[in-house]
Amino acid sequence: MENSIQEKTVTAITSDALLEDWQGHRRLTRRVIEAFPEKDLFEFSIGGMRPFSELAMEMIMMAGPGIEGVATKKWKQFGEGTEISKPKTREEILKLWDEATEKIDKLWPTIPAGRFQEVEAAFGQYENPIYATILYFIDNEIHHRGQGYVYLRALGIEPPYFWER
Amino acid sequence: MENSIQEKTVTAITSDALLEDWQGHRRLTRRVIEAFPEKDLFEFSIGGMRPFSELAMEMIMMAGPGIEGVATKKWKQFGEGTEISKPKTREEILKLWDEATEKIDKLWPTIPAGRFQEVEAAFGQYENPIYATILYFIDNEIHHRGQGYVYLRALGIEPPYFWER
Repeated sequence: MENSIQEKTVTAITSDALLEDWQGHRRLTRRVIEAFPEKDLFEFSIGGMRPFSELAMEMIMMAGPGIEGVATKKWKQFGEGTEISKPKTREEILKLWDEATEKIDKLWPTIPAGRFQEVEAAFGQYENPIYATILYFIDNEIHHRGQGYVYLRALGIEPPYFWER
Repeated sequence: MENSIQEKTVTAITSDALLEDWQGHRRLTRRVIEAFPEKDLFEFSIGGMRPFSELAMEMIMMAGPGIEGVATKKWKQFGEGTEISKPKTREEILKLWDEATEKIDKLWPTIPAGRFQEVEAAFGQYENPIYATILYFIDNEIHHRGQGYVYLRALGIEPPYFWER
């Protein structure tokens, strides 16, 4: 076993581990949302980029409807239905954040075995295996959260530790 | 099958898929290194953060010695042996980058089946399952690369598309 050559189907990451990884990142991002002064959350930006509130809303629009598509195969278009509810306070964003967290925890165990390897157009548009779609949700969050770290540093605020989940 | 409850050991991500994800991210990061004007790569920063050359070197010190530890169980201390070779040009960084890329491709197939779930102190210090250690390498790269995107935007330079790997 120790020296066996890997087979193509060797498991690197289980379903449980992927969920924990995602929710760990989401807990950290929640603390980054909280670290911004409320005004800066909605207004501060660098180089013409979006303020962190908009980056956080992108994450929410990906995570909530995303886990629904993953679990049920029913995809909305990206951003569908969210135009009318643009949050104006941190509390509203955190409420939407927590709703997505609960939805992920609730729907994850209903994902059928084998589903992760199915190829399907996420949001009717992005054709990838489901595991890659989920990785994309996570990666996109890490990417934009990293940008939020620069905003915080530029504001003179120490961000939460990256490795604390 | 369709409606079966997941078992704890359901595979979300295979070894092959994790390698491809990592190398895809590394291809993108390489393009980000190339996108910086050479002077700014070594000097530009925001909010007292490190310039992107130093962030890239952190990624290299994690990836190269990291894959060695993952594949061979022999861990150096983080950063060990790199103090003497601090690159001063983009070309030197890209050369180290490409050496790490080759090392990952070469060593990955030698990782024993089952190794991903073993708990071990990465760099003799960070106790985690091996899959989580690899995810940390990738996540740390995405995190710092996202910061590089802000540097590029602040410099008026359009970064490569995040979704192109």
